[in-house]
Amino acid sequence: MISNNIKAKLAGGSAIRKMFEEGNRLKAIYGEDNVFDFSIGNPDLEPPHEVADALVELASNPVPGMHGYMSNSGYESTRAIIAKKRSEESGVEVTADAVCMTVGAAAAMNDVLHSLLDPEDEVIVIAPYFMEYNNYVENHGGKIVKVATEENFMPDLKKIDEAITAKTKAIIINSPNNPSGAIYPAETLIALNDLLKAKDHVIHVISDEPYIDLVYDGQTVPAALKYIDNLIICFSWSKSLSLPGERIGYTLVSPRNEDYADLTAAIVLSNRTLGSVNAPAIWQKVIEKSLYAKVDVANYEYRRNLLYSNITDAGFDAVKPGGALYIFMNTPKDMSDSDFAAACAKYNLLLVPGKSFSGEGYCRLAFCVSEKTIRGSREAFFKIADDLNIKHRAEL
Amino acid sequence: MISNNIKAKLAGGSAIRKMFEEGNRLKAIYGEDNVFDFSIGNPDLEPPHEVADALVELASNPVPGMHGYMSNSGYESTRAIIAKKRSEESGVEVTADAVCMTVGAAAAMNDVLHSLLDPEDEVIVIAPYFMEYNNYVENHGGKIVKVATEENFMPDLKKIDEAITAKTKAIIINSPNNPSGAIYPAETLIALNDLLKAKDHVIHVISDEPYIDLVYDGQTVPAALKYIDNLIICFSWSKSLSLPGERIGYTLVSPRNEDYADLTAAIVLSNRTLGSVNAPAIWQKVIEKSLYAKVDVANYEYRRNLLYSNITDAGFDAVKPGGALYIFMNTPKDMSDSDFAAACAKYNLLLVPGKSFSGEGYCRLAFCVSEKTIRGSREAFFKIADDLNIKHRAEL
Repeated sequence: MISNNIKAKLAGGSAIRKMFEEGNRLKAIYGEDNVFDFSIGNPDLEPPHEVADALVELASNPVPGMHGYMSNSGYESTRAIIAKKRSEESGVEVTADAVCMTVGAAAAMNDVLHSLLDPEDEVIVIAPYFMEYNNYVENHGGKIVKVATEENFMPDLKKIDEAITAKTKAIIINSPNNPSGAIYPAETLIALNDLLKAKDHVIHVISDEPYIDLVYDGQTVPAALKYIDNLIICFSWSKSLSLPGERIGYTLVSPRNEDYADLTAAIVLSNRTLGSVNAPAIWQKVIEKSLYAKVDVANYEYRRNLLYSNITDAGFDAVKPGGALYIFMNTPKDMSDSDFAAACAKYNLLLVPGKSFSGEGYCRLAFCVSEKTIRGSREAFFKIADDLNIKHRAEL
Repeated sequence: MISNNIKAKLAGGSAIRKMFEEGNRLKAIYGEDNVFDFSIGNPDLEPPHEVADALVELASNPVPGMHGYMSNSGYESTRAIIAKKRSEESGVEVTADAVCMTVGAAAAMNDVLHSLLDPEDEVIVIAPYFMEYNNYVENHGGKIVKVATEENFMPDLKKIDEAITAKTKAIIINSPNNPSGAIYPAETLIALNDLLKAKDHVIHVISDEPYIDLVYDGQTVPAALKYIDNLIICFSWSKSLSLPGERIGYTLVSPRNEDYADLTAAIVLSNRTLGSVNAPAIWQKVIEKSLYAKVDVANYEYRRNLLYSNITDAGFDAVKPGGALYIFMNTPKDMSDSDFAAACAKYNLLLVPGKSFSGEGYCRLAFCVSEKTIRGSREAFFKIADDLNIKHRAEL
């Protein structure tokens, strides 16, 4: 007697969640140190001290009404400082009313899609991608249209062009990308904008940006806000400030968006009627005080390098990710991602087959796991390579 | 280019929100003290000191991972103590896995309806009711079926029986009720359960319980959990602990619910895919430490009494509400609720016409406004009565 749709989804389950449970099962048998679980992308750094300080300050100096309702889009002061930071980063002048506070990027995506979609509207995604987008789009009656990337996981503009129909309402971009770590360069964003603007109806670009502050090798992520006009940003501090449990993020509509007035109003309405209403009051205030703080990105970069060396030294191939928390390694030639995951599991090495991201031929490994686990896994990578007759590129 | 459905909703707007804006306009002209705005039900008491203490304690003693992801349904320890309290109150043994933490009751309602509804499924509501339920049901493809109450705002079981069809998936109850303040007695809940159980398919009862701790005159609210089998509770601490800005609540599926296993799993899935994922980590921990604390309910009761005296002494009629934060007064005989609201607005007295709750012939006044406002409004009520040739029952 529950919804047929949900019943089907429950039966399907989540591959990542199953891997997580398998990891726990193996750890119980072999011990924590002998299982190399790269399946879950759980940001494991502590928030920067500015966050902890702001929380203590707010808790210790209570102000009447500080836990009460605020404007439906969130505190004006919080939205204003977010708008200011985005303006600085992009050169595009953004005001507070462009911003609506949400309980994270997932809620932001639902708010935006609920605001945009009529039944059967199409939303383009660029595979490999975070397949929870399927749920977000289906929740609001839309249809997912997948478009494959070029080599190096860059958007294939020709294929995107071919995929656009009269029903295309939006395209989702995600740079740095989960699972590939790809960062889209400015010229790609400019070309995408040109392509979309040449169409005879508005196609919104939904930029899902949870990883925007997790970038390595001294890079910065080109601001979608600078290069794309009909843009809506979905953001979360889950990764940028390591606050995934606290449910805080926002939507931001570009002032250049042709539907700016309707969209900003629609998102606030959707945020209310979908039930999250806005975002936790105390976290809005913490953010206001610590917006320019950052987690220790160098720590993630160090672990990315370690894991990348394990993979490539053992003889496997992978594009080195410029951002996010994952390496999307190639499976060995002529081997399916499931078969490769099974070959790895023999050595208690757990990774997620690429098909969970619509990316067959790859497997995802999260490097936000302990340095000890990464170091401990090196031997396993080498043994797996041996089993598959793959030639090492370095000594163990 | 936004969704047609959302566009229509934006054009309709919210009557309560319009009243709120009208209140601000009048206050700017006549001064705060000369406008009697009873339109918004914003809980205005501070949280009990246990909440503030717990927040300071948690902020001041940071523990690694305290802001990180937890189990998808929320912290086990928080869910366990909620289950324990509900068990104590109802005599029905509830375990932690019955509970899923949400960002408030509105999110809880969306999660539950998303879990239950197939397209065109019907959900019965008992009018007058909180019309945001319309949005929650429509969000997930369902249809609202309104059933009028008896006098005194009690459910009319005969009418409910007549409204049930093969497509009826659920009925929403809300006791204490917004807008009427009615509390459903045990015998009503028992009769409702008997009625539903006699049907040849499962009809779930969704009990929306944000006001369950705001009851007056020494009453307690009969526990739906005790009397109704196929029950799903949606709860929020917005009113019970005066935390509406912090977005914290839960769903609870009765262990007697025939779809218990499917429903508990479906709600966790819906909570994730609709984007709130669970509830703010720090507020889950605060709740764990202050679950048995209460706001100063006597303060609300005092103000209810004051406003009720104003209304009835001036000569108007109203059922005295047993709970919640509103008086749902009768409009004078042969006068529409809009006309009465207009007559009140002449004296800067703002209330919400009953049609905003599918309750024509009434107007809603929130008594969670300052004592000064309530006292200041007495003369206005008397003048409005004079204008309408209504005989006072007491001296000004």
